[in-house]
Amino acid sequence: MSRRFWWWSCVFGVGVATAAEPPKRPEVVASVTSPDKVLRVEVGLDEGRASYTIKRFGETLIAPSRLGFLLRGAEKLERNLVLAAQSGSSHDETWEQPWGESRLVRNHYNELRVTLTETLKAKRSFEVIFRVFDDGVGFRYVFPEQPQLREVIIDDELTEFHVAPEATAWWIPAGEWNRYEYLYNRTPLTEVGQAHTPMTIRTRDGVHIAFHEAALIDYAAMWLRRVEGQRFKAQLSPASEGWKVRRAAPFSTPWRTLRIADSAAALYASNLELNLNEPNRLGDVSWFRPAKYVGVWWELHLERSSWARGAKHGATTANTRRYIDFAAEHGFRGVLVEGWNHGWDGNWFGDGNDFDFTRATEDFDLPALAAYAKSRGVHLVGHHETGGAVSHYERQLGAALDLYAKHGVDVIKTGYVADAGQIERFDRQGGPALREWHDGQWQSRHHLRVVTEAAKRHIAINPHEPIKDTGLRRTYPNWVSREGARGMEYAAWGNPQNPPEHEVNLVFTRMLAGPMDYTPGIVSLQGRTHPIPSTLAKQLALYVVIYSPIQMVADLPEHYAEHTDAFQFIQDVAVDWAETRVLNGEIGDYVTIARKDRNSETWFLGSLSDEHGRVLQVPLSFLTPGKTYRAEIYRDGDDAHYRDHRFAFATEQRDVQSSDMLILRIAPGGGQAIRFVAR
Amino acid sequence: MSRRFWWWSCVFGVGVATAAEPPKRPEVVASVTSPDKVLRVEVGLDEGRASYTIKRFGETLIAPSRLGFLLRGAEKLERNLVLAAQSGSSHDETWEQPWGESRLVRNHYNELRVTLTETLKAKRSFEVIFRVFDDGVGFRYVFPEQPQLREVIIDDELTEFHVAPEATAWWIPAGEWNRYEYLYNRTPLTEVGQAHTPMTIRTRDGVHIAFHEAALIDYAAMWLRRVEGQRFKAQLSPASEGWKVRRAAPFSTPWRTLRIADSAAALYASNLELNLNEPNRLGDVSWFRPAKYVGVWWELHLERSSWARGAKHGATTANTRRYIDFAAEHGFRGVLVEGWNHGWDGNWFGDGNDFDFTRATEDFDLPALAAYAKSRGVHLVGHHETGGAVSHYERQLGAALDLYAKHGVDVIKTGYVADAGQIERFDRQGGPALREWHDGQWQSRHHLRVVTEAAKRHIAINPHEPIKDTGLRRTYPNWVSREGARGMEYAAWGNPQNPPEHEVNLVFTRMLAGPMDYTPGIVSLQGRTHPIPSTLAKQLALYVVIYSPIQMVADLPEHYAEHTDAFQFIQDVAVDWAETRVLNGEIGDYVTIARKDRNSETWFLGSLSDEHGRVLQVPLSFLTPGKTYRAEIYRDGDDAHYRDHRFAFATEQRDVQSSDMLILRIAPGGGQAIRFVAR
Repeated sequence: MSRRFWWWSCVFGVGVATAAEPPKRPEVVASVTSPDKVLRVEVGLDEGRASYTIKRFGETLIAPSRLGFLLRGAEKLERNLVLAAQSGSSHDETWEQPWGESRLVRNHYNELRVTLTETLKAKRSFEVIFRVFDDGVGFRYVFPEQPQLREVIIDDELTEFHVAPEATAWWIPAGEWNRYEYLYNRTPLTEVGQAHTPMTIRTRDGVHIAFHEAALIDYAAMWLRRVEGQRFKAQLSPASEGWKVRRAAPFSTPWRTLRIADSAAALYASNLELNLNEPNRLGDVSWFRPAKYVGVWWELHLERSSWARGAKHGATTANTRRYIDFAAEHGFRGVLVEGWNHGWDGNWFGDGNDFDFTRATEDFDLPALAAYAKSRGVHLVGHHETGGAVSHYERQLGAALDLYAKHGVDVIKTGYVADAGQIERFDRQGGPALREWHDGQWQSRHHLRVVTEAAKRHIAINPHEPIKDTGLRRTYPNWVSREGARGMEYAAWGNPQNPPEHEVNLVFTRMLAGPMDYTPGIVSLQGRTHPIPSTLAKQLALYVVIYSPIQMVADLPEHYAEHTDAFQFIQDVAVDWAETRVLNGEIGDYVTIARKDRNSETWFLGSLSDEHGRVLQVPLSFLTPGKTYRAEIYRDGDDAHYRDHRFAFATEQRDVQSSDMLILRIAPGGGQAIRFVAR
Repeated sequence: MSRRFWWWSCVFGVGVATAAEPPKRPEVVASVTSPDKVLRVEVGLDEGRASYTIKRFGETLIAPSRLGFLLRGAEKLERNLVLAAQSGSSHDETWEQPWGESRLVRNHYNELRVTLTETLKAKRSFEVIFRVFDDGVGFRYVFPEQPQLREVIIDDELTEFHVAPEATAWWIPAGEWNRYEYLYNRTPLTEVGQAHTPMTIRTRDGVHIAFHEAALIDYAAMWLRRVEGQRFKAQLSPASEGWKVRRAAPFSTPWRTLRIADSAAALYASNLELNLNEPNRLGDVSWFRPAKYVGVWWELHLERSSWARGAKHGATTANTRRYIDFAAEHGFRGVLVEGWNHGWDGNWFGDGNDFDFTRATEDFDLPALAAYAKSRGVHLVGHHETGGAVSHYERQLGAALDLYAKHGVDVIKTGYVADAGQIERFDRQGGPALREWHDGQWQSRHHLRVVTEAAKRHIAINPHEPIKDTGLRRTYPNWVSREGARGMEYAAWGNPQNPPEHEVNLVFTRMLAGPMDYTPGIVSLQGRTHPIPSTLAKQLALYVVIYSPIQMVADLPEHYAEHTDAFQFIQDVAVDWAETRVLNGEIGDYVTIARKDRNSETWFLGSLSDEHGRVLQVPLSFLTPGKTYRAEIYRDGDDAHYRDHRFAFATEQRDVQSSDMLILRIAPGGGQAIRFVAR
């Protein structure tokens, strides 16, 4: 959900001016290679300044780039450094995800740990840990316990990323009024201003790199600010106090990550950030069930009903029963209801806002609906819209979660609709709100607080207007999905709507971070004001291409009744995967992904194109050799087009084997979805 | 073979100035779509001028582009036209190649035939036949019998190709002093001057197009001259008479072809030009045997021996016996000998040049060597270097072929070393030579004369410094290979040598035309003056990637003795294929091709990169499901590099199946070769 509040006009200064001269010829003091020896990280010192370099096949990919910090009330922790210690290790394990895009994940890297110590009197130290995988590099800083640096107040992180070969970037702006809900820019890397991560680039020579971070815990999110040319610097999301991060040592920063691959497909296939997160801390999470859900949502965006009470109120007992019946009839597990609680028609903002997370509106009978849902074998999906008044929400959090737990609600969609930098924080009684960023240190703590409190009650969390995903679902597997990009709602009222290339851009940028609750499946292809620039087949393909363990079946029941052929795929498609294969793809152009259901031998394939039609040859080598599968094909009709033939659509069935090659004909703005059922 | 003759300095004017205004909004008078309905060709008339347009998924790929001619002594056959007739048909057949990259070829298209007639008093007519395939478009002009146009003298062909979307081009210049032996340029399409075909482009949206021609018979080759922006015009190779082409009606022009695909791999997989050629006219050609050959060649380029007689003469009886023994010992069928005949040390040029194609030098005993070869189960490969004195060669052609036939020589390498536009033609007794182009109408007739004369004697032809390949091997399957690009010889003495990207560029440009006698396998990696910028593994990969039914094992026997591990692959690799799959590739960056031996269940894989290293994920889905194969892997060593670690090389074996994924690690300037033997 997203509303713009135009009163936000404060232009944010982008940090302290710390653009030092780039390192020139640092002396290499330590190095480590990837297991396949393709990547090499070198740590250098250059007149006491630390830097790192990444080489690939001996060629410089990331030119010498600074490491270090500007600490409050102290000198830069960047100069006068010496290498005090270094150590190396190797690691190779395969771990299992409780749910996800693949059951097994291999975590195979060589590690280098360096300790850098000042030669000056303070003799402050920090460590940098580099993990070099075949598919990329992660590094983090560690502040060890040291008497001269018990509390660390970071005014600026000086980490740089200096891309050597000429490159094109796909990116959205950071530090602007919006959070993450932008269309992607494709520009020369030299034309990026300040970008959110993941930012994906392709060099002129075809190397793909995605910059991101992993394990963002109790720290400010990293933006990428271009200093000059292709040299970028970490820009930490600000805190209301003026600094960026305040922590007591010992602590570690998040990992700064670079996925590196020769193709967009291989970039997507990497599990770098998941591998850099800590293992599951929640133990058995089988209480979370990947599933599809329906609900009172799209009708709100169409303005057929309203979040607020009154004649048009959507979240009524009767209307919710209608969705419960629809879900039960078609085998969908969840029923989301937005606007069920008090506060939507009151004051959204400020300490005294009216959102009450334990009080339903008069026309919504939560206990009765929960009982009815249970009797029909479905579950309500909870909803907590904070309006950005986070302190207000936190005060009610325990009771709000308890209420849902009591009624069998085990997934909650949360919401933080407020402009960037406008999260309301009240540390003081009665004083004005402090304004925090959606991705600052304070909000990073908040999200984890909600997730851990929910976990205690066996509830999964799906935040909208969230902090970005940095792989924490590995450690907290009840953090199941999130928004954090322009979703389907922009098809209802966006100006502009999401263009056909948007989802293909998402796959190779935002989706590298983790699951997205995109809410696909609008088979009516009609927004509130404009037709949706998509073919019917594309709405089905989105279920396979845009990964989430909870997938909304977002259109209205009456619309599905008009498209029973397409609806069959939505009923059949799985949501939890044993394996994922990216069969082809170019950033912003097209992508084809195949996934194997975790609970059967069935495979699914989804393919999307941008505004251009494509003919893609796809070998079916992912199928089990020797087996025959019935391919249930949902494709664009011959004259399908996202502008004027959106509903041109065809279904067909044929028997296929792993040795077959399919030719996918994707219309402009179109897609294709296939279910492969083992015979 | 290539020598430069710098006395060539005549700058050729590039045709009559005929750059008309591009057609604006022609009225569509006829149209035809591809079988899959993705491509659509529209024929338009615009104030009596004819044009065609190509649309893909409804989007304009080739904007309205002129059709027509400028005829000598007559008005342009372009204006005042009306559509006199049109007809359509469909065609779908699968035909078999006697040898090639695949045994079966599907020929599936829709055809549109339009007759355009002048409204003026002459009422001249011509037809245009469009064939629209799923993978591209071909069109040709037909001049029917008509009293007012019995003889057609073409001063200029007005055909245009106006590319609509912004594109990048890979191309070599045409109309310069050289023939085809250039390094490939990669430029914006707007920076092409005049290019040979195949010229390959990639649009900003990822559509790949290769412009070429098919069935170049008794006509001048087409160059592509950029008129303005992305608008190109056919520029016919000149004739010494001043016109471009002179023919008696009825006749057809060659097909103008555009392969169109969403990937470089799919572009290569197309058989468009073969399909547009006439079926085999020679009947049973099983007398041609695809094979590998060795010979007196690389030592000449190293200047260890000489073509000319004297102390260093290479083509001696003793030296040839050495190669015959080497071939026999290792199972290679052919032994090429260059410099065996009289004339190399005499006058190369002019009517009275000294090349004698039936007289061996004193130190070369052709009958004895032929008999010795036969006794050892091998065959001499003939050699006819003309020095460009083509009339001189033609006078001896019958006797020269007879001599070889008598001695069991069934493959001849011909040569036309002369600068572009310097083929010597003598129609008159005693007069000065006329100067023809390597790809003009006169020389197109010459090549076919040689090929058909050779076919009568069951001899195959492999011309160097040839006319380009336009798929005539379908009609004349004894035209088995040719050079027509910078081959391995440039590694011996080129300045510059072929850089690492050259062969990858070739695959997606020159190799779209047909087989190339690249003469790979220089395991010594050392030219006459410089090291060869290649790894050892790459020399092996070239046997799979650069297709030819006759493949030279080009290095010296003593060099192979020093690299027996690598040499094993060269002995094992097949030369005739049942199937070919392009597994991945980007123009000028990298490519991986798998091919199945036509005579066994064995598959081979070759992969090349440019000057950058690559990590490529390759599903082995081409293997037969359920079968286990022993993969014999010949790869770059961990620190291999084309500059300073050329010999870093490793071999390994492992069992694989069709469901496996191999990760190919290709060094900068490196390659990988694999043989998959069914267990």
